[in-house]
Order: sequence, then structure tokens, then C-alpha cells
Amino acid sequence: MRICFVGDSFVNGTGDETALGWVGRVCALAYAHGFPITSYNLGIRRNTSADILERWENECSLRLPAGCDNRVVLSCGVNDSMLEDGALRVAPEQSRANVHAILRAASRYPLLMVGPPPMPEDAQNEQISALSRAFADEAAALGVPFIELFSPLVADAAYKQEVASNDGAHPRSSGYTKIANIIASSPNWWFHALL
Amino acid sequence: MRICFVGDSFVNGTGDETALGWVGRVCALAYAHGFPITSYNLGIRRNTSADILERWENECSLRLPAGCDNRVVLSCGVNDSMLEDGALRVAPEQSRANVHAILRAASRYPLLMVGPPPMPEDAQNEQISALSRAFADEAAALGVPFIELFSPLVADAAYKQEVASNDGAHPRSSGYTKIANIIASSPNWWFHALL
Repeated sequence: MRICFVGDSFVNGTGDETALGWVGRVCALAYAHGFPITSYNLGIRRNTSADILERWENECSLRLPAGCDNRVVLSCGVNDSMLEDGALRVAPEQSRANVHAILRAASRYPLLMVGPPPMPEDAQNEQISALSRAFADEAAALGVPFIELFSPLVADAAYKQEVASNDGAHPRSSGYTKIANIIASSPNWWFHALL
Repeated sequence: MRICFVGDSFVNGTGDETALGWVGRVCALAYAHGFPITSYNLGIRRNTSADILERWENECSLRLPAGCDNRVVLSCGVNDSMLEDGALRVAPEQSRANVHAILRAASRYPLLMVGPPPMPEDAQNEQISALSRAFADEAAALGVPFIELFSPLVADAAYKQEVASNDGAHPRSSGYTKIANIIASSPNWWFHALL
């Protein structure tokens, strides 16, 4: 079983001093539950949904050979919501269209989408929250399971404090552990303990 | 600081139930030594030196933006030495030429090469050993530091036993820990404890 995790710095695990990130943690948990998956971490710092739309197919096709149980997990959005020269890096309608295009084209694989996490600033969080809901709607319309990070994390003062005291964007290992636990405990996640 | 680790399943960490592989372990060690690096694991299962020659530049250029301290680590060779339909997947002279081409083109980045690890079979190990020496020669000719894995691991009965009792090619976490320790303790490695 081979899984490509496609996304941004949060997928990459930037800032995690253990070098696991949430991707490493959910994969180690899957292993422990009896699923020895091969994972490919395709998170790139500063990538927007537009950047991912450009590259995901080429990078995934090199890693997901015919004959394997191949899957794709997509997560993005925070970089779309960044202001650059006074404008959003990607307009919300375009973010939504990009995610729709990726999910539709990737539908030949079992797919999962993980929503964007919150940032420390309330103004950006309004953007992120709206994007997360829009991505959830797009995923639902295409029958793709969606795991939300925004609501549980925006209510978590310790998570936001860790991000603020780190680099202002990324958590460290305890925040990534929280993200991994949200994903691994979701009924939409693929790999639960075999009872 | 951003590092692309380009290579095969051993770079990917295939078989490691902790999901760290040697790449995750050397990055966590670097973090602990005061180097908060962003790492990109670009190891792909079954990739030969020819496969890597095709893709490394495109994938690295998307991850190593101007203005960062960008580095590349290359490791390959075991898949080149595999027999398929009675022939080596890549002939030794071609493997050497591929590695030369990658190292020369990547010389705009600080570079490091890690040699291929041994396999359980003596016949394949003759090929791997010769490739490791050839890659070391190519690296030396281009002034690229090289860290050998073959000699210390081929003499390690516990390593070979772990590989043989796993899938016949990849170690599990204790083997990857050994590889990480060989790399992290090499004078050619970049990130040692600040004294």
C-alpha cells in the first residue's frame, strides 16, 4: 500500500523537531495497527492550491505504480490565505476551483482531504475557516472523505500558543501530535486498530 | 536550511515501522544539535540511478527556493544491481555515468552522497560493493563528500538478519537506526553537536 501525502509545510512537518510531522505519526500508527504502508511526503513549504495543482499528478504518478494499493491524501489552504502585497495569494473562488480540479483528477485513487489548520491571527483565521468549509463542500460533492482540523485546533489555546512562540505559523511536536490524533481518530481515516 | 534527500526505498525508509527511516533520524538529530532543517524526502521505491537522473532536478527545484541554504543528498545503487529477466536493471558503467551526471548537475548545491547498503545475497553484494566504490570515486573526482554504508553493514550479522527476516531487502527500525548513526557520526556529515 502506497500513499502520497500532497500539500504544504504542514504536510511536510516543518517545525517538528522529531522529524515525524503528522504524516509520520499517522503512518507509524497505521504500522502499529497492522498496515505496513509506504508513505511519500509531498508537502512543500509555501505551496498554494495552485502550486499543488501544477505538480501533484507528475509527482504522484512516479510513486504510485500500477498493481499497488495506491492512495492520495491532499491538504492545503493556509498559504492560499496569506496576504502578499495586500492581496490574498490565491482568491477563495480560485482555491476552491483548484481543490475541485485536484480531487476530480485524483479520483482514480482512493482519496482523502485534510482541512487547513488555524494560524495565530484572527483575520487570517476567518479566511482559513471559510476555505476549510469550502473544501469540505467540494470534497462532499465529489464523495471524498474530509477531515477538519480548523475547529478543534482554533479552540485549543495551547496549540495556538505553541505556534505563536515557534515561528508564528508551524507547531512543534506537540501540535503535530494533536493533528495526527485528530486524523487517526476520525471515522474518515483509513487505518484503525484491527479488533 | 532545506535539504532534499533524493534516492530509492532506503532513502524513503521503506519497512521502518516508526516512519522515520534514516532520513528522519538524521534530521531529528540535526534539530537536537541546533540545526532546524526542513527536509524533503524524495526517495522512491524501485528507483534506479537512471530514474533519479530523470526526475531529481525538477523535484528539487520546486523545493529549494532562491535565498535559502539549499542542499542535496543523493543515495542509490541497490536497484541498479537487481537482476530483471537475467540482466542487471542498470549496467555498472551506466550507473556510474548516471551518478556522475547527477552530481555534476547538482553541484550548484552543497552536496553529499551516501553509498548503497548491502542486501542479504552475496552475489548481489558483489555488484553493490563495486557500485559503492565506483560512486565513491565519482564523488571524490567531483569533490563531493561520500559516506559509505556497505562495509560497516555487510559485516553486521544482525543487520543482515533483520533484512532477511523482514522483506529480504529493507531493514526495520533498528537497521535504519544503524544507518542513521553511520551517517550522523561521519566527519563528512554536515550537522554535528555544537560544542
